[in-house]
Amino acid sequence: MEQPQQSAGPEEAGAEAGKPPLRVGMVGYAFMGAAHSQGWRTAGRVFDLPLSPVLTALCGRDAAAVRAAADRHGWATTETDWRALIARDDVDLVDICTPGDSHAEIALAALAAGKHVLCEKPLANTVEEAETMTRAAETAFATGGQLAMVGFNYRRVPATALARRMVAEGRLGRLRHVRVTYLQDWLNDPEFPLTWRLRKERAGSGSLGDLGAHIVDLAQHLVGERLAGVSALTETFVRQRPLPGGPSSGLAAGAGRAGTATVTVDDAAVFTGRFASGALASFEATRYATGRKNALRLELNGERGSLAFDLERLNELWFHDATEPAVHAGFRRILVTEPDHPYLEGWWPPGHGLGYEHTFVHQARDLVHAIAEGRVPQPSFAEGLQVQRVLAAVEESAEKNSVYTPIAD
Amino acid sequence: MEQPQQSAGPEEAGAEAGKPPLRVGMVGYAFMGAAHSQGWRTAGRVFDLPLSPVLTALCGRDAAAVRAAADRHGWATTETDWRALIARDDVDLVDICTPGDSHAEIALAALAAGKHVLCEKPLANTVEEAETMTRAAETAFATGGQLAMVGFNYRRVPATALARRMVAEGRLGRLRHVRVTYLQDWLNDPEFPLTWRLRKERAGSGSLGDLGAHIVDLAQHLVGERLAGVSALTETFVRQRPLPGGPSSGLAAGAGRAGTATVTVDDAAVFTGRFASGALASFEATRYATGRKNALRLELNGERGSLAFDLERLNELWFHDATEPAVHAGFRRILVTEPDHPYLEGWWPPGHGLGYEHTFVHQARDLVHAIAEGRVPQPSFAEGLQVQRVLAAVEESAEKNSVYTPIAD
Amino acid sequence: MEQPQQSAGPEEAGAEAGKPPLRVGMVGYAFMGAAHSQGWRTAGRVFDLPLSPVLTALCGRDAAAVRAAADRHGWATTETDWRALIARDDVDLVDICTPGDSHAEIALAALAAGKHVLCEKPLANTVEEAETMTRAAETAFATGGQLAMVGFNYRRVPATALARRMVAEGRLGRLRHVRVTYLQDWLNDPEFPLTWRLRKERAGSGSLGDLGAHIVDLAQHLVGERLAGVSALTETFVRQRPLPGGPSSGLAAGAGRAGTATVTVDDAAVFTGRFASGALASFEATRYATGRKNALRLELNGERGSLAFDLERLNELWFHDATEPAVHAGFRRILVTEPDHPYLEGWWPPGHGLGYEHTFVHQARDLVHAIAEGRVPQPSFAEGLQVQRVLAAVEESAEKNSVYTPIAD
Amino acid sequence: MEQPQQSAGPEEAGAEAGKPPLRVGMVGYAFMGAAHSQGWRTAGRVFDLPLSPVLTALCGRDAAAVRAAADRHGWATTETDWRALIARDDVDLVDICTPGDSHAEIALAALAAGKHVLCEKPLANTVEEAETMTRAAETAFATGGQLAMVGFNYRRVPATALARRMVAEGRLGRLRHVRVTYLQDWLNDPEFPLTWRLRKERAGSGSLGDLGAHIVDLAQHLVGERLAGVSALTETFVRQRPLPGGPSSGLAAGAGRAGTATVTVDDAAVFTGRFASGALASFEATRYATGRKNALRLELNGERGSLAFDLERLNELWFHDATEPAVHAGFRRILVTEPDHPYLEGWWPPGHGLGYEHTFVHQARDLVHAIAEGRVPQPSFAEGLQVQRVLAAVEESAEKNSVYTPIAD
Repeated sequence: MEQPQQSAGPEEAGAEAGKPPLRVGMVGYAFMGAAHSQGWRTAGRVFDLPLSPVLTALCGRDAAAVRAAADRHGWATTETDWRALIARDDVDLVDICTPGDSHAEIALAALAAGKHVLCEKPLANTVEEAETMTRAAETAFATGGQLAMVGFNYRRVPATALARRMVAEGRLGRLRHVRVTYLQDWLNDPEFPLTWRLRKERAGSGSLGDLGAHIVDLAQHLVGERLAGVSALTETFVRQRPLPGGPSSGLAAGAGRAGTATVTVDDAAVFTGRFASGALASFEATRYATGRKNALRLELNGERGSLAFDLERLNELWFHDATEPAVHAGFRRILVTEPDHPYLEGWWPPGHGLGYEHTFVHQARDLVHAIAEGRVPQPSFAEGLQVQRVLAAVEESAEKNSVYTPIAD
Repeated sequence: MEQPQQSAGPEEAGAEAGKPPLRVGMVGYAFMGAAHSQGWRTAGRVFDLPLSPVLTALCGRDAAAVRAAADRHGWATTETDWRALIARDDVDLVDICTPGDSHAEIALAALAAGKHVLCEKPLANTVEEAETMTRAAETAFATGGQLAMVGFNYRRVPATALARRMVAEGRLGRLRHVRVTYLQDWLNDPEFPLTWRLRKERAGSGSLGDLGAHIVDLAQHLVGERLAGVSALTETFVRQRPLPGGPSSGLAAGAGRAGTATVTVDDAAVFTGRFASGALASFEATRYATGRKNALRLELNGERGSLAFDLERLNELWFHDATEPAVHAGFRRILVTEPDHPYLEGWWPPGHGLGYEHTFVHQARDLVHAIAEGRVPQPSFAEGLQVQRVLAAVEESAEKNSVYTPIAD
Repeated sequence: MEQPQQSAGPEEAGAEAGKPPLRVGMVGYAFMGAAHSQGWRTAGRVFDLPLSPVLTALCGRDAAAVRAAADRHGWATTETDWRALIARDDVDLVDICTPGDSHAEIALAALAAGKHVLCEKPLANTVEEAETMTRAAETAFATGGQLAMVGFNYRRVPATALARRMVAEGRLGRLRHVRVTYLQDWLNDPEFPLTWRLRKERAGSGSLGDLGAHIVDLAQHLVGERLAGVSALTETFVRQRPLPGGPSSGLAAGAGRAGTATVTVDDAAVFTGRFASGALASFEATRYATGRKNALRLELNGERGSLAFDLERLNELWFHDATEPAVHAGFRRILVTEPDHPYLEGWWPPGHGLGYEHTFVHQARDLVHAIAEGRVPQPSFAEGLQVQRVLAAVEESAEKNSVYTPIAD
Repeated sequence: MEQPQQSAGPEEAGAEAGKPPLRVGMVGYAFMGAAHSQGWRTAGRVFDLPLSPVLTALCGRDAAAVRAAADRHGWATTETDWRALIARDDVDLVDICTPGDSHAEIALAALAAGKHVLCEKPLANTVEEAETMTRAAETAFATGGQLAMVGFNYRRVPATALARRMVAEGRLGRLRHVRVTYLQDWLNDPEFPLTWRLRKERAGSGSLGDLGAHIVDLAQHLVGERLAGVSALTETFVRQRPLPGGPSSGLAAGAGRAGTATVTVDDAAVFTGRFASGALASFEATRYATGRKNALRLELNGERGSLAFDLERLNELWFHDATEPAVHAGFRRILVTEPDHPYLEGWWPPGHGLGYEHTFVHQARDLVHAIAEGRVPQPSFAEGLQVQRVLAAVEESAEKNSVYTPIAD
């Protein structure tokens, strides 16, 4: 085992006076790694936490790159082998920010080593892996009190958290409709290269696992119940894409022309479904919605009211109260920045909005509380597994001529 | 046959100097009848038409009620039997604004009597009727030069007409996504009575024929091609509703409790589909989207750009030009009130918006031009038939466990 | 006196069975004339009126042009001299749609001839004229029961009428702020010709009388009280403009270069003010707000709530109810298309919006009711005069270094 | 002098490998102090900075409170006397986050002690103080190379920075109109207590210095030139407010009833103005705009285009390009989250928006660069002084019956 590399400039974020530390070791430092770093560094600065997160060790395969990332993001030390990270005594929690094909292996090892685990979504690339992980998490909790959480961060936008609260309070009454889209457009350019996210063996699926996982989880979370079944169409619009590294890349096995290879995941998925209690649902996930950058849009219609949200305007929740006289009723824009709104106790005065990254601050906050209290955090691995089952049903329906496909329990 | 009733106050709308008249006889005078009346009365006041529409005769079963309606809406005479209306020599065109179950019979008789026909949507309650009507229309055109049009008025919102023009100009490039909803909420109240629109034998279907027909037609019109197949879920949320006339109503045969009867149509439908050239589509029609009053919303995403529209803000078309540098790109709100916009030559200065009823003015305008020029107007009965086939495929898919169902040619 | 010209195709709009007629003679047939024609023709078709408006005679100086306009807009006969129109026995009401410099003369003569009068805004080009007109109207009412109204049509958008109702109901509480803009951009092009609207001797003022008059009236109407004083800046951005008729035009006296002449009115005005009860107000009127086509935007902030409106989205009124708990409060978009909303009893189902021209239908409706009931319609000439005094104070303030200038009573 | 208090958990934020530190000492730790802390802690984690900010010392009068704040926000040590802070050798920059009445004294002392200074806005409570501070800053730069900056953070929203760039590129052409409001509503409640912000001796002015300073600076910054003069109205709607500490408070001198005292600042200000090159401007600052939480809204209209922004949707900039054909033109919503947008190089993928606090991260970034390069940062004290002169002219105009008041050079 390599020696841990000591960073020149460690940041002991949140080692606030007198609080026990929560020592985090993180695997992966790309987009999600940067976002999680912000979360861990900031949570204790904004919220009054029972434990103080410490950015103990960052792990990546390239020693120089991981060192640079650790310096940038404020991690005290580095590792180049995730097994070494997991073996460290000074790591309490392993935060997994790698592509989906390594989630299961790392998470199982971390749980076996007695660590808490935060795993990015989707939980795994297959239902089988997700089942194994869920069993392992349940065993680890039962035997060692370890906690495992999956990173569906969009539950922790203040506006979606408020939406959940309002649904739970009965403000929408019986739900009739749920419609959710997650629209991006970064694959619209046919010259965009074939990165790992476009390869089934790495990413598991395309828009489905990346975007669809978010909206399936968020919809079920807000509704407060599970999807009973789905009917789906999927499509890959651009089948051949240039390789990221040029013609000599090792991916060339699948290449259809010099320097290109075949996209093996879905570009887009549209699916409908039914919730257990009868609400109709529709979903769309795509990376080809030109001009839509991050349009996770949802609307719930119930007998007593409706809610609407758009991630591109994440500080706003729209609410229609159908119990009011029609003459004064209308969708209202709640600016979710009031002190009584979820997560707002630590932030700025009303109207001074938050951004994308704060979902990771809130995720860190909630996980720290769960760990301190020894209770299973949400979304648990079991919830991540259930989302995986929905995605599997979507794929199965798409393969079977869109036939309505029940979600396995 | 009754004598035509001469109204005390006829309106010879549009009998402008020197223009040949187009004498209209209309059957039905409820919501659609009122809207069509506005269309016929106003078209010649705003546009320079080759023929001058004359509101010659209004037909309805109740003599007093039709007389009152004629006075209100400006029709010169009345009839109480549509066969008498069709028999009149002074009627050139029969405008059918009745529920769907009488469309076929009236339209066939009118064509047989040598009249032009404008028929409200949906064209008919069954594909078979629509086929018969389409054949009759084609024969009438070939033999007598008569013209037949179906009333998909939403093609004639200036913003949707501009959208069609922009798609046809190639400004969106190859289309990837089409998503359309038509959301209303007037059935959310479970005490809303069981009117004809909720009875299959009168209306043919529920939200599907009422709202779904509009969005299927509009989507295909804007895209410029046909749907290849669909996968659908439908639902009836409230199965029993009070009868409009109370317990003694003749509908009581289907009554589940005193004074109620069973809803026999769909309350909502969600369906996905594929266009011939590969674009993915999603549709939703419902009368239970609390707070949404008339939200016909559509978005098209193509390789070169996107368009979005909402009928609740019908003077606006949103356009994203993806050929622009990303640093200055964004969805722009085109206020479709410029002189060069479709239908705007006759209206007000920029920014002085139009309303719902003007779609009927535009419909009248376009139909008058088609008649004067002897060319088949759009949407033709053949187009109405094709929409009917899509709706039939939706129902078939919904019955067959959502299996993907190709649209018959 | 010329013989009245009988149109080939008269329209006896609204001569509904058994209703006494209200015979209208209108002077002017440009933009406002077209809009008023729609109002008179349609009001009795949509609303149940006590009198039936008849489009009896249209007056303009050019015989051929006025004949063509009468045919287009549905007027039965024409006149080329407004004095002849006023002299006619078959005219009950004179509707004045000419530029402001002729309002006083025509209105005074019409009132003297025993006619009711509807006069387009601004009431006159000077306070003195407006005072004379107001005195004449008051005398005519006292002695002959004639009614006079000024055409501030924006009071009759359903959304602004709802706003007025809500303010009157106390839903906003004590008002703190009133901000109103009326933004257009049609003078942004420096080659736009010097039409009558840019000449002080015809139009009285520029953006001030055209747009400012509307927002001053609307603000005072909604607030329910008068402005106490104003402080103003005005500006003419483009001083020289091409003549409409080219170099030989009779306007050449003021020409600064061949074929151009000097703009003698304001291009824009910004002003602040105080309402009697202490609310602060700000106003802006301009024809240079690039991209804003008809942006009459207003917002009222009171202790208990706020309202906002934008004429470019005229079917919407935004309401913030400050008496609600902050956690669920927000500006709500009331779609002003419900049956209980002002003017909506005659129109379409919820969500089927209206357009600009319908303000003239509502104006005709309300004036007909006032005439039938013999009560002074609002806005009266006295109200038009008061607006004129505000505009005069704005001009005086602008000339006197923006000093706060009280409004004369 | 007290010993510096060593925090139990210092955060050596940004002490990245091999980079020289920039050691910050901050005075004040309320709202602004928390925001600045986030800025200093995060800037080096997101951007590649030439110096590494270190949160060296936090200063406040209450030892226990400042210690708690230091722990919370990550400052290594504390001081209770700002003179002691300034005297420390290990502080390179003094960041002043106190009320306006102490800005001048602290800034002058810090500059005299050879420190760089960041001073919150408004620069001072009087023009005289601001002049002294500006002279001191200029001398300090000339003699010691020290840099001084004022904290108008709203220049550093990516959207406003993009707006500035677009104006500078000429995309708007000659400007005609500038309208800016800054609307909040937290004083609408008459029971809100009389805090320091409502006392002239502490805050200098009310909405004017708090909100008006921001919009005057931002407007001038975006336009790229100075206001020539202003005409103003101000108002205090609620004159008596409860004291924060109850009846025994030391403020009781001004009390009008038991436990209340007199508000000595403006509640709201509306003012108009002219820019040197002729554009008309209007401004409004208020804390009584019910339902508006942080509505800093601005619009610029120029010959070639327009821009609009609302701080409540801070990731969006709206642009109208008037050089496009009218048929396709419209205000477009630029989501300012692209890699080429200002400040976006360090953040998230497109569509993943930022929040309020990130303006302080950007402020820290830019100040660090300026210090590393030895150039005067913007906004300089001279710019802060000029804003102060505008505010003084606003107050003078308001006192002199709104007369147009030129801005002193």
